[in-house]
Amino acid sequence: MRVVGPALAMKPQPHVLTIAGSDSGGGAGIQADLKTIAALGCYGSSVLTGLTAQNTQGVQAVHVVPAEFVVQQLQSVFEDEPPLVVKIGMLTSPETISALGEYLSSLPHRPLTILDPVMISTSGHTLLPDQAIANITSRLLPHVDWVTPNIPEAQRLVSSSSPVSTLADLLSLAREIRDAVPAKTILLKGGHLGVTREQVNAVAGQYDAVWEEGDEEEETVEILSLYRRHVAVQPARELVVDVLIQRGDELKLFVGKKLESTSTHGTGCTLSSAIASLSASAPGMTNGEITRRAIEYTRSAIATAFAFGKGHGPLNHSHVNMQRSIPPPTPHNPHPFTSHLVQSDLPLWKSYVRHDFVVQLGDGTLPRECFEHYIKQDYHYLRHYARAHALGAYKSSQFADINAFTDIAAHIARESTNHVKYCEEYGIDLATLIAEPESAPCSAYARYILDVGNQGDVLDLYMAVASCLIGYGEVGLWLKRKVDEGKITLQGNPYRRWIETYCGEDFLTAINTGIDNLERRIAADPPSPEKLKKLTAIWHDCVALERNFWEMGLKLLK
Amino acid sequence: MRVVGPALAMKPQPHVLTIAGSDSGGGAGIQADLKTIAALGCYGSSVLTGLTAQNTQGVQAVHVVPAEFVVQQLQSVFEDEPPLVVKIGMLTSPETISALGEYLSSLPHRPLTILDPVMISTSGHTLLPDQAIANITSRLLPHVDWVTPNIPEAQRLVSSSSPVSTLADLLSLAREIRDAVPAKTILLKGGHLGVTREQVNAVAGQYDAVWEEGDEEEETVEILSLYRRHVAVQPARELVVDVLIQRGDELKLFVGKKLESTSTHGTGCTLSSAIASLSASAPGMTNGEITRRAIEYTRSAIATAFAFGKGHGPLNHSHVNMQRSIPPPTPHNPHPFTSHLVQSDLPLWKSYVRHDFVVQLGDGTLPRECFEHYIKQDYHYLRHYARAHALGAYKSSQFADINAFTDIAAHIARESTNHVKYCEEYGIDLATLIAEPESAPCSAYARYILDVGNQGDVLDLYMAVASCLIGYGEVGLWLKRKVDEGKITLQGNPYRRWIETYCGEDFLTAINTGIDNLERRIAADPPSPEKLKKLTAIWHDCVALERNFWEMGLKLLK
Repeated sequence: MRVVGPALAMKPQPHVLTIAGSDSGGGAGIQADLKTIAALGCYGSSVLTGLTAQNTQGVQAVHVVPAEFVVQQLQSVFEDEPPLVVKIGMLTSPETISALGEYLSSLPHRPLTILDPVMISTSGHTLLPDQAIANITSRLLPHVDWVTPNIPEAQRLVSSSSPVSTLADLLSLAREIRDAVPAKTILLKGGHLGVTREQVNAVAGQYDAVWEEGDEEEETVEILSLYRRHVAVQPARELVVDVLIQRGDELKLFVGKKLESTSTHGTGCTLSSAIASLSASAPGMTNGEITRRAIEYTRSAIATAFAFGKGHGPLNHSHVNMQRSIPPPTPHNPHPFTSHLVQSDLPLWKSYVRHDFVVQLGDGTLPRECFEHYIKQDYHYLRHYARAHALGAYKSSQFADINAFTDIAAHIARESTNHVKYCEEYGIDLATLIAEPESAPCSAYARYILDVGNQGDVLDLYMAVASCLIGYGEVGLWLKRKVDEGKITLQGNPYRRWIETYCGEDFLTAINTGIDNLERRIAADPPSPEKLKKLTAIWHDCVALERNFWEMGLKLLK
Repeated sequence: MRVVGPALAMKPQPHVLTIAGSDSGGGAGIQADLKTIAALGCYGSSVLTGLTAQNTQGVQAVHVVPAEFVVQQLQSVFEDEPPLVVKIGMLTSPETISALGEYLSSLPHRPLTILDPVMISTSGHTLLPDQAIANITSRLLPHVDWVTPNIPEAQRLVSSSSPVSTLADLLSLAREIRDAVPAKTILLKGGHLGVTREQVNAVAGQYDAVWEEGDEEEETVEILSLYRRHVAVQPARELVVDVLIQRGDELKLFVGKKLESTSTHGTGCTLSSAIASLSASAPGMTNGEITRRAIEYTRSAIATAFAFGKGHGPLNHSHVNMQRSIPPPTPHNPHPFTSHLVQSDLPLWKSYVRHDFVVQLGDGTLPRECFEHYIKQDYHYLRHYARAHALGAYKSSQFADINAFTDIAAHIARESTNHVKYCEEYGIDLATLIAEPESAPCSAYARYILDVGNQGDVLDLYMAVASCLIGYGEVGLWLKRKVDEGKITLQGNPYRRWIETYCGEDFLTAINTGIDNLERRIAADPPSPEKLKKLTAIWHDCVALERNFWEMGLKLLK
């Protein structure tokens, strides 16, 4: 078997910079941005343009950061570790807008830049002075790749006052902004406008429409409608449409069911940060796919939001994350899973690997009948242990795993010839050895492994066979250390051959391989907290059954 | 079976407020705080006391936020949704310190308050003016529950200039600060001081010492030392000790291996935010356990950090999180897993539930020999389908599950009598039915389910039996809708009894139960992305095998 070990180097997280204001309430601004960026697996830095004293009910006060200090922050970020993607949100003054435009244009390699043209907060507070909007158009937009206005913001950007009350109005606003704004990509967010299925179907032939997952179900999935009635959930009546405008391409519509929720504070910040994060982490992804995923992330963040505050509550940014139960392997701890197992019940582990049977075996005082009883039962155990590995091969999906399991099964079958030889030396022939009844501790342990293997998945089986392999290595190494330290001697020890087997090169290589396999499997597909609990319980059971096996030898238990 | 449905209400996240400065580089300050708070499952809000233009190499400039605006932010947060825990970091001016102390003391119910007395940045920049330190002692410390100084900060707080170069020095500083600072709990962070195992062992008898997981291994786990050599990792030589000081309690030492890393920018912010988050999310947890976990979180964040910037890089705050592959069920989408399955290959799903066999069955034009062939093969299929549920009972761990599986197995066995009856009507007796050879599409499907059940865990088996149940319900409901809409009629349809079975109350209840079971299992223990891929592949296989089963009927395939 090849020994490789888990990867110990840490994967860098793509760097996304947000340039925006602070929301003390934590639901919008750089707070929403940083939460989104982290949730989507990126590294967030932030340049603050202003601070708000704000909560779910509104903006109580604004503190403008001087344009020079905004530039100073930009320099600190760019001169150390330039971001892959920049997202721009609230801009508090015409000076800051100009300074930012100038800074972006001065960069030899400007990163992908996304502008969320925040002008008015969800609660109705004007966040951008009138005179600043002119600066956005003249000084900033030329240095931006992607703009994400909502309907009122788009109307301001094209200086239109025509009402938008149907999907047709929205599409005509989309065409207007495409002509007025130089950015390559514009996402016109239609969340403020409820439209009907009929309106969408009327234009569906003309444009490419992407339906939210689950939306086509009306037509083709009767059981989901049945189930919604069963759990007493009303289907949404209205739809919302976001329009993606890409220079040279047809408009693309993103259609979703309208969400009934008051947890919408920071929705715009969240969506644009999600676009920034997805752009940074998957360079090859199309803008259409980025948009679809960013919308899905944002909508789920609204749908899973919890009650917070007295007004429009924040989104649940971390809905895409779950707790990892085992940290990744690092040079500090290259074996986090094995460490966890051993440390999860250290006294139990010690009762196995420092058992009196082992101690007496090491100093040669173990009565011969104890070793003989043990070796006969271990012959039976090995038979089942080999079968367990054959079961592992049956449970495998790929030849690499089938090969690994059958190799070990064959190795165990060969190992059993040692036991036959010991018995011959004690005057026990093979037929007698085979006829020897299985003791209760032997049956209990061997049949436990096979049952776990049958009942669970291949990882459960791996877990069930691990404590025998790892524990025998521990015993072998510990006895070897005692020999090296002169505390015991192998000279004249009747069990020398046994000890030398379990601290020999062959066996220790097998242990390293076994730990490698466990750590790599766990690192590649970390178990949920529930699964870890189950794996740990299997480990504890097996360690106790191993301890009982020594006990059987020492006390000659049947 | 009881039908319950998954919980659709969202669990609130405990609210933690950080009062601190902004680090434009994203590694320290409120950025580190918010990242830590989110990673540990809490909701973070933030009151900014100042902004820094900062990166991994140092602090380039500071912008002080006026004390009145700090108070304004505090009011916005506290008057909307008061935090459960407050964490205080960088304080930029004596006025802010006084105003904050006053604000905290004015609260009728002050939340648990943790002060990280930030004075000097990792890079050596003085973040707190000298005259402000006096204000901390007189105006702020009386309103704080927990303080987390490092060695230099502790020295400043007790005005000591004795050098700290051994563990004994550290412990005497701990006793000094216990007497000087009124807070109930103090965590004296010894990260700057390397100590030896001998120094720790020398005082281990006097104090309660908590060893980092894996540290006792030197003594009892030979295999882990072997494995570290195998993957060429050097064990740490030095230890670090943090001292927890609780009024009325003996000092508690937290001993860990010294981490060799330059990714330490924001370590103090991270540790105190972790303490705040753990305190907020587990009210009953002891301070000792909170400290142990906060240290473990912070150390792992350092150990898993990736290269970033030119100086002291940031920590990896999200190392405890992994991507959730299926969102939790919400009223917006109460069946996210079933939606995912159906939408993951909608054309495949349609090829099954809208198959010509079904269409002809609905309008009564299906040739009798096709239905007869189908019903004979479905008799065999049901036999294996019942066995698969019996296997599910074998694979279950609790009686509730054993009961559910055996109930369904018994129900399927009874359902087969319908098939016997159909065959009797067609002049086929039971012995002939039993002797009928299994067709290839029937064997392929039935044996696939059994093999998946044997090879994988109980969830794999659940997945393998799901598409038959759910798809037959879909067919039944669709045909029923066509009847209701007058598009087909059951009058004179020779397959009326079959159709009525699969849109009947009994069968539809079973479908809701089946979806419930899937959604609850997935919500309670969400699969990893890897596992989801596997489950989805099983679904696709079974949907295709079901389609092939109709095809077999229609084309009389053997």
